[in-house]
Amino acid sequence: MRTRAAVATAAGKPLEIMEVNLDGPRAGEVLIEVKATGICHTDEFTLSGADPEGLFPAILGHEGAGVVMEVGEGVTSLKPGDHVIPLYTPECRECEYCLNPKTNLCQSIRTTQGQGLMPDGTSRFSTLDGDPILHYMGCSTFSNHTVLPEIALAKVRPDAPFDKICYIGCGVTTGIGAVINTAKVEIGSRAIVFGLGGIGLNVIQGLRLAGADQIVGVDLNPDKKPMAERFGMTDFVNPSEVEGDLVPYLVNLTKGGADYTFDATGNVKVMRQALESAHKGWGESVIIGVAPAGAEISTRPFQLVTGRVWRGTAFGGARGRTDVPRIVDWYMDGKIEIDPMITHTMGLDDINKGFDLMHAGESIRSVVVY
Amino acid sequence: MRTRAAVATAAGKPLEIMEVNLDGPRAGEVLIEVKATGICHTDEFTLSGADPEGLFPAILGHEGAGVVMEVGEGVTSLKPGDHVIPLYTPECRECEYCLNPKTNLCQSIRTTQGQGLMPDGTSRFSTLDGDPILHYMGCSTFSNHTVLPEIALAKVRPDAPFDKICYIGCGVTTGIGAVINTAKVEIGSRAIVFGLGGIGLNVIQGLRLAGADQIVGVDLNPDKKPMAERFGMTDFVNPSEVEGDLVPYLVNLTKGGADYTFDATGNVKVMRQALESAHKGWGESVIIGVAPAGAEISTRPFQLVTGRVWRGTAFGGARGRTDVPRIVDWYMDGKIEIDPMITHTMGLDDINKGFDLMHAGESIRSVVVY
Repeated sequence: MRTRAAVATAAGKPLEIMEVNLDGPRAGEVLIEVKATGICHTDEFTLSGADPEGLFPAILGHEGAGVVMEVGEGVTSLKPGDHVIPLYTPECRECEYCLNPKTNLCQSIRTTQGQGLMPDGTSRFSTLDGDPILHYMGCSTFSNHTVLPEIALAKVRPDAPFDKICYIGCGVTTGIGAVINTAKVEIGSRAIVFGLGGIGLNVIQGLRLAGADQIVGVDLNPDKKPMAERFGMTDFVNPSEVEGDLVPYLVNLTKGGADYTFDATGNVKVMRQALESAHKGWGESVIIGVAPAGAEISTRPFQLVTGRVWRGTAFGGARGRTDVPRIVDWYMDGKIEIDPMITHTMGLDDINKGFDLMHAGESIRSVVVY
Repeated sequence: MRTRAAVATAAGKPLEIMEVNLDGPRAGEVLIEVKATGICHTDEFTLSGADPEGLFPAILGHEGAGVVMEVGEGVTSLKPGDHVIPLYTPECRECEYCLNPKTNLCQSIRTTQGQGLMPDGTSRFSTLDGDPILHYMGCSTFSNHTVLPEIALAKVRPDAPFDKICYIGCGVTTGIGAVINTAKVEIGSRAIVFGLGGIGLNVIQGLRLAGADQIVGVDLNPDKKPMAERFGMTDFVNPSEVEGDLVPYLVNLTKGGADYTFDATGNVKVMRQALESAHKGWGESVIIGVAPAGAEISTRPFQLVTGRVWRGTAFGGARGRTDVPRIVDWYMDGKIEIDPMITHTMGLDDINKGFDLMHAGESIRSVVVY
């Protein structure tokens, strides 16, 4: 079939909107119509050329929602008409990782996914001239139709709006999951969130959901304050307004350090501040942000020997097929908010404007509606 | 009263054996007769002058066992004749830290202990000329008699031999506790221990006690192999005999990385290797060793984002008054071994020989018997 897609032809260039060929689903695969997709910093990271593993030409996008159109041979858990959210971290429920309750990093299709291919080692996308176009993060939601493995689709309730729940495909789950799956924050905790962008706001609402007593937000941009307060932030700290070192200021503000801290900046210096503002004896710090290639975190080992714990999280520690439908329910039940974070909506033809808004810091999330 | 002690008069000088004055116990304090004391690398670290917090003159030693002689006002948990092990990490059971099940780092007397003083801000030791001599780590077991706070003494069974259980006051508990309290190693785990000295051997026997399936020991000295095997090591790796990088070699040896790794070297480069040889998705690395002042650990944050956890431990995460008597029981019941690790025994007059043996790498543990 033919479909319309925004194709990343080369690093650093705007996406090109074009008709592309899409082969039907093979065994274990599912064809979906994408109804909406968010534009995430990870798409930008790859498009910019900064991602050392970025491949071109490819169809980016990994934060979508849509409807099943056709299923390949052997697919049993989905049928045409089902509403789904694509999962860049699949859940096969069979590999060594899925069978270990300590991780969500299903490895069953990792190699081919990293190569921009379906599990059989081929691409379903091609130009009208027949040249192959690569998949991206196993999702490629910047195409009106796409093919994914069955294990990379979460089936969700049909009454949830696509243009909102697409955000659960990455940002919402990453932020909330970091709190509830990775850190396992307890009621009454004190926490600090570094970076109040799309991920940080979701960390904050995850902390509110978990019953944290103090939720400190740290950002250089004071314009972030009202929205963060809406999501549950109790204290705002602008590092540029703090006299002296930030870490002792935050330790004092949280009565000895936070029980949990979260880096949602991707800046390795901030990751160190996040660790060191965790409470002696038991404070845990979770790295969510993706650092530039080659960047390293560091600290004195004394910070760990005196009881701090340094962790990281990917996709919020969520097992997508199991956890994403629950988060959709939480949204529909009003336990979490998404709407205020979707600041811009546009058609596929205007997708490059979404990247411009991101660069300008004017959007929290732009969503493309097909 | 007068007693005999080995006094550290200045950094870098041998200990001086001399008579010193010892005041009796004040309120909440206990006078004990030290029967035996181990000589630990931490004593050496301070004596050498490398410890930036080292103070002189002081009576070092923190790995002892002895008998209560006299109790001060208000002491209720101990009486003359009780056998005890001094605790450099006390357990007051009242402070914010003791009441938090996530930590063992009782803070109730930390400030004065760090100043070489009893909790009331004074020292019980002085020269025969009346000049004060400082306490060390709240213990000062290089004196035949010493005074400690009640909360810094673990009461142990009276039939356990002092010249063996003194080692439980630091090395044994640190190594075994890192496994069972800090890492909480599960039956069937794979583990790697870096450094097969006195701490590393106790990590190994802790892993055996916890039911680990694979226990890899890493050390540059092949002479360490037989003793480590005796304590439960299943695989020995000499980094100087590995072609190529050590980390991928260890990852391969442990079928994808170890579930738990332990640094018992104090070398920050080894700490990084320990983290990176932990299993993707769930491997945890525990720093036990004390690094040189100013040294920093580093890694790419990707190591944490893909599921590894970086921790540290002090005194093996043990709450001394509660856990140390249990470890003494394990020794008496034959669950753990100590005797083979006590390679040398000497009188107080020969204590400097114990330091010489440590420098030469000839001892695992030297014990001074009074």
